[in-house]
Amino acid sequence: MTIVMDAGTLNEFLGIEFPQVAGSYRVETTGPELLTARLIVAEEHLRPGGTVSGPSIFALADLAIYCVILSRIGPVALAVTTNASVDFMRKPAAGVDLLAQCRLLKLGRSLAVAEALIFSEGDEEPVARCSMTYSIPPKRPETGGL
Amino acid sequence: MTIVMDAGTLNEFLGIEFPQVAGSYRVETTGPELLTARLIVAEEHLRPGGTVSGPSIFALADLAIYCVILSRIGPVALAVTTNASVDFMRKPAAGVDLLAQCRLLKLGRSLAVAEALIFSEGDEEPVARCSMTYSIPPKRPETGGL
Amino acid sequence: MTIVMDAGTLNEFLGIEFPQVAGSYRVETTGPELLTARLIVAEEHLRPGGTVSGPSIFALADLAIYCVILSRIGPVALAVTTNASVDFMRKPAAGVDLLAQCRLLKLGRSLAVAEALIFSEGDEEPVARCSMTYSIPPKRPETGGL
Amino acid sequence: MTIVMDAGTLNEFLGIEFPQVAGSYRVETTGPELLTARLIVAEEHLRPGGTVSGPSIFALADLAIYCVILSRIGPVALAVTTNASVDFMRKPAAGVDLLAQCRLLKLGRSLAVAEALIFSEGDEEPVARCSMTYSIPPKRPETGGL
Repeated sequence: MTIVMDAGTLNEFLGIEFPQVAGSYRVETTGPELLTARLIVAEEHLRPGGTVSGPSIFALADLAIYCVILSRIGPVALAVTTNASVDFMRKPAAGVDLLAQCRLLKLGRSLAVAEALIFSEGDEEPVARCSMTYSIPPKRPETGGL
Repeated sequence: MTIVMDAGTLNEFLGIEFPQVAGSYRVETTGPELLTARLIVAEEHLRPGGTVSGPSIFALADLAIYCVILSRIGPVALAVTTNASVDFMRKPAAGVDLLAQCRLLKLGRSLAVAEALIFSEGDEEPVARCSMTYSIPPKRPETGGL
Repeated sequence: MTIVMDAGTLNEFLGIEFPQVAGSYRVETTGPELLTARLIVAEEHLRPGGTVSGPSIFALADLAIYCVILSRIGPVALAVTTNASVDFMRKPAAGVDLLAQCRLLKLGRSLAVAEALIFSEGDEEPVARCSMTYSIPPKRPETGGL
Repeated sequence: MTIVMDAGTLNEFLGIEFPQVAGSYRVETTGPELLTARLIVAEEHLRPGGTVSGPSIFALADLAIYCVILSRIGPVALAVTTNASVDFMRKPAAGVDLLAQCRLLKLGRSLAVAEALIFSEGDEEPVARCSMTYSIPPKRPETGGL
């Protein structure tokens, strides 16, 4: 499948559409197989003990999976998550960013399925595994002017 | 099963252990069947269009399920989510809080399973459904002095 | 929501459309809140030790959820499971049937979400919890003759 | 991690411990990264139209994940599935076997997590994706005689 939005274009899109979160996340690379995204870990993502919170891990997976879909279909702001399954497997390392490696498994007309492995930067063992289904709205008919 | 932490005690515990999030969440009621918890929706939980974000819904379910477990076993700060499954079913209403109705399904020695339905306050149709497994650390042996 | 297929009609439908499995499963009751279905446990559903196998529990949940959807929309043989999440919580009792209590959470135009609790007959604690999403094919246009 | 049970040993173990299903499944290969297993598709696994049923896909994933765990820890018959999440993405091809490619993501003292992609033999696009958690019973203490 062709990549229609690369990392730079995706980051620009996130900055415009999701200004509240765009400062914390960055798409690093896109490719035919994998998209990688980063959570720039800050105070707000931490739990006592310095570990990244579950909801922050979920948010990173959600963003990476959203972006891997957009990288193939273009800027569809209205795609929404319908299902998510997460396994939290190891405690994230304190003081380092999280990276998501995300793979698109199915891109149908109305549903897309992708999975992500989440790593503490520099570690080889995944912190979490996530799979999600997105519902993609039907394409609006091209209109001649209005 | 006996309730060993009620809503007031749980909210106090959250305020001490999780000061970063305690302002946004509140346990409303505990009981033999259901625990209810509230997300006090603020700007930070919203997506464009005024709808509550997926990660905020996840965070509410996670907190409610954590609290329903603590309500039976007491203040075990180290219980951790190992698995979560979420179905996002409807768009949350804009400008109202979210409520989680949470039920404990299993409380084993090392694993607990619970589920939560999430509602926009005032609506009868659930916004989301979530089930989670928590790993409960083994009780530390009582030591005589050290 | 109105029930358009009751237990008798659903069992008749299963016997015609799914003759390979219809002998093992039976819809017991339908209602505005709950559908209950039974797995008539036989040798083929057992694992060593006399306990019902995981795939048999999955199959019962899948059938009950399929039927709760049909009970509202009528005989749509082509509805298919797109996602399933199961928590296996207790060992089923040996030598007794399994019962599924199933609740429809969302019935959209193209996706339906339902959940089921599975019990060993006579036990109050659930053996398993399951939630599934079904994709419902668009209605075929009414044709005038062919 | 070292492989302590290879494909031949796993198949022998399945034949002894699970004689009811061993004829339908076969571990094909084991390795440091992937285990592959086959469902020898027969009449009993089919739905109308000749497609493999959801419970049969679930059963293949369950068996492959069980075997990838055993390949690292040896013959522990009592390991049990505690959680499963499945995405059914494409209709299996009629008349061909299914293959599971399975990867171990975490092997802890009491919980193991693995994922499997399921393919119709000869196809490159996965039919389904599955992740499961297994609970591993604690090792019985070595006893000197009794």
